[in-house]
Amino acid sequence: MNTESKNLLIDFYELTMGQGYFNKKVDNTMAYFDLFFRKVPDSGSFVIANGVKKCMEYLTNFHFSESDIDYLKSLNLFSNEYIERLKNIKFTGDVWAVEDGTVVFPNEPVITVKAPLLEAQLVETALLLYFNRASLIATKTNRIVRAANGRAVMEFGTRRAQGFEAAVDGALDAYIAGAVGTACTITGKKYGVPILGTMAHSFVQSFDTEYDAFKAYAQSFPDSCTLLVDTYNTLQSGLPNAIKVHNEVLKPMGKKLKGIRIDSGDLAYLTKEARKMLDEAGLEDTKICVSNSLDEYVIQSLLLQNAPIDSFGVGENLITAKSNPVFGGVYKLVAIEKDGKLIPKIKISDNVEKVTNPHFKKIYRLYDKNNGKFITDILTIFNEKAPRGKQILTHPDNPWTKKEVKDYEVVDLKVQMIENGKLIYNLPTIEETRENVKKNLATLWPEALRLTNPHTYTINLSDKLSQTKKDLLEHAGGQIEK
Amino acid sequence: MNTESKNLLIDFYELTMGQGYFNKKVDNTMAYFDLFFRKVPDSGSFVIANGVKKCMEYLTNFHFSESDIDYLKSLNLFSNEYIERLKNIKFTGDVWAVEDGTVVFPNEPVITVKAPLLEAQLVETALLLYFNRASLIATKTNRIVRAANGRAVMEFGTRRAQGFEAAVDGALDAYIAGAVGTACTITGKKYGVPILGTMAHSFVQSFDTEYDAFKAYAQSFPDSCTLLVDTYNTLQSGLPNAIKVHNEVLKPMGKKLKGIRIDSGDLAYLTKEARKMLDEAGLEDTKICVSNSLDEYVIQSLLLQNAPIDSFGVGENLITAKSNPVFGGVYKLVAIEKDGKLIPKIKISDNVEKVTNPHFKKIYRLYDKNNGKFITDILTIFNEKAPRGKQILTHPDNPWTKKEVKDYEVVDLKVQMIENGKLIYNLPTIEETRENVKKNLATLWPEALRLTNPHTYTINLSDKLSQTKKDLLEHAGGQIEK
Repeated sequence: MNTESKNLLIDFYELTMGQGYFNKKVDNTMAYFDLFFRKVPDSGSFVIANGVKKCMEYLTNFHFSESDIDYLKSLNLFSNEYIERLKNIKFTGDVWAVEDGTVVFPNEPVITVKAPLLEAQLVETALLLYFNRASLIATKTNRIVRAANGRAVMEFGTRRAQGFEAAVDGALDAYIAGAVGTACTITGKKYGVPILGTMAHSFVQSFDTEYDAFKAYAQSFPDSCTLLVDTYNTLQSGLPNAIKVHNEVLKPMGKKLKGIRIDSGDLAYLTKEARKMLDEAGLEDTKICVSNSLDEYVIQSLLLQNAPIDSFGVGENLITAKSNPVFGGVYKLVAIEKDGKLIPKIKISDNVEKVTNPHFKKIYRLYDKNNGKFITDILTIFNEKAPRGKQILTHPDNPWTKKEVKDYEVVDLKVQMIENGKLIYNLPTIEETRENVKKNLATLWPEALRLTNPHTYTINLSDKLSQTKKDLLEHAGGQIEK
Repeated sequence: MNTESKNLLIDFYELTMGQGYFNKKVDNTMAYFDLFFRKVPDSGSFVIANGVKKCMEYLTNFHFSESDIDYLKSLNLFSNEYIERLKNIKFTGDVWAVEDGTVVFPNEPVITVKAPLLEAQLVETALLLYFNRASLIATKTNRIVRAANGRAVMEFGTRRAQGFEAAVDGALDAYIAGAVGTACTITGKKYGVPILGTMAHSFVQSFDTEYDAFKAYAQSFPDSCTLLVDTYNTLQSGLPNAIKVHNEVLKPMGKKLKGIRIDSGDLAYLTKEARKMLDEAGLEDTKICVSNSLDEYVIQSLLLQNAPIDSFGVGENLITAKSNPVFGGVYKLVAIEKDGKLIPKIKISDNVEKVTNPHFKKIYRLYDKNNGKFITDILTIFNEKAPRGKQILTHPDNPWTKKEVKDYEVVDLKVQMIENGKLIYNLPTIEETRENVKKNLATLWPEALRLTNPHTYTINLSDKLSQTKKDLLEHAGGQIEK
């Protein structure tokens, strides 16, 4: 049993900034932070938001243990008064967020934290870590699942994951995003995710012959016998031995060979030949599973070649999101309360795309009334009314491009999940989140779901928010005290 | 406090294979497995072995809890007898491994496990996970450290890490491989790694002016005041305000501005201009730190441009090893004991580079007696004598290429760490491993240390091992029972 506190999963500068806030007595100033991302991994059209549940669990349990406090004291950097302040700190703020499984787009505030400045600052690192990792793997897995076009995708990456949590929670995220199960046993125990697995080459090698190995396995698992056929030679040894074991061991028991797995070689060629051999042996129902450094593009290519594959075991490319292993979620100050007034804040930058959207905001999502399809999101200042009736939307980057929308239903996309530090939201079950992914994907056009050059939706700012941003940009320069 | 068992961090097929072994009564057959990798990430010359200590801790604690057993029972897949067998299973084998921090090369057995087949099989997944992740991050970090050419590298990637362990242990691995410290506070608490950090843009934004923010920070940390100067405009606002705060706040206290950090914009240009401004203000000792999606190539480019940078904060590209986020360590059966005899085993493959080196093996490392430099490694069968005197080495892939070596010292590279399931080895401290990295790197020629197209060393097989491999390859075909 491994026991460890995760409380100090905090970038150290959050703690030094905290001392600065505390000394200036602004640690209790009410602040608003947005968590958002700027780019969709793999040039996709959308992200599947994930990890929100874990963020909420983190916030409602946020505290420091005695040993954490002792460690901070031992650094001889912080004042005693500040250490006292940290001793009993809890998260007392309000949080609004999109639900796990929701399709979201760049620059949308997917989580908004309203809390005393010190608290809001200290929780930054963990919120980013949890949201970034979970959204990355869910988004990547769903690409692979879409490529498999209805065939099963199994998560097989544990050994190549970047650590325990990456493996165990990554397998959960894969399931949420559409994988049918995982090889990671502990994910089965911890979360109830279906677990899958058959044999490795070492099993075959450890017997005198491949036939002996297959026979031993078939006798142990007559009802779920999937044999790995590529240890020596797939077509000349593996397939003939598998068929022989079916005929000599399984058939007499009234059982059938459930499947074969091929883990090397030219998977298009080998699966076609294997399918023929199985069919000729009367094993039309025996499934063919493949693995070996698969990703969405290899899977697409195999299916384009009509490879008769029933399921894909996907490892390293899924569990590390290898093609794009960094999810760039950020957490930015967007407003401060001062003398009872909400002051919007902006982070400007020489890189235009890094300028933040200021203010405490809502996301209104518009769906087409006729077909339920997603139309657009409109970011507004928190106290603006929901859009109603015909709207003329101005493209946020190209103000000369306008679009008219009408006949829509509108949803306030963020839900308040925490109020005064207390969870006021029913955290969804894994199956509910898995359903939410499906429901969300069904609102997108196929053109947004394709893997290469997908349609990208435009997200709009309300006129009022747009004006606020312009005003702040114009007044942001010249911060030098004269 | 988070408590969770990690025992079932096991690919499910290890458990199903285990049932097969158990039924065939070969679960106690003594088996030998090698852990090795086939490719160095980023086309480098070598890997820094890491995670071995964690593997040894795992093996000596290996067991299932009651709830693990209950979970396995609940699957209704395993026999009661097998479940009983798992109930009290421990790791009872022997393990030889290279020490953490050792420079290693493709196809070398960095960890060799000799254990009853069932035990050796069940520990595969976790050993791979721990070794892969830690070696990946150590190897990547050292590339970045080499690029920085003596300047400090700080690990800043927590928020983009792929999970808790990736963040916390990744920061440790970075330190072992040459980073000076990390922003990840919990890594400081848990492992004693130096922790570092100053402020984020949100700190600057949360005050009315940049000057107010800098002043507040300087007053809180007069001895270690590093200011982030790019929130509004680095040269027109950040630098002037930083210098002003030095003059008005720190100087009167007899203190000096310790540093500035620039996190955006053209870092070569901005650091040169910043250096001039600081020097003109008499702040020649104030350090310049930069961050913003750095990696080894960006750092090399900045230094080639003579950017006056003292330290680099490196985040996402280090902590995820973004350019090559998968470390492909594998774990393969190499021998079986049968009737008191050791039977070498081979895994053949259509991909020549995937053919394994069979047998229980040693790695002999040869150093030049005159300058201590690494010459080569020779893999031998376990009971061959250490090389002595002049050796004619045959290139493993090009048998017509021969090389003569003499005047060398020889080291048996793998150390026995576990005997009959008990740790018999003093696990090194973090500082010892950090030293071991330096010591190992000093044995390599600069040509192997460069980042692009480095010299790659040839690793040799002894004649006897080479012959054993040939024999097995010739007899491996025709596994079909006639």
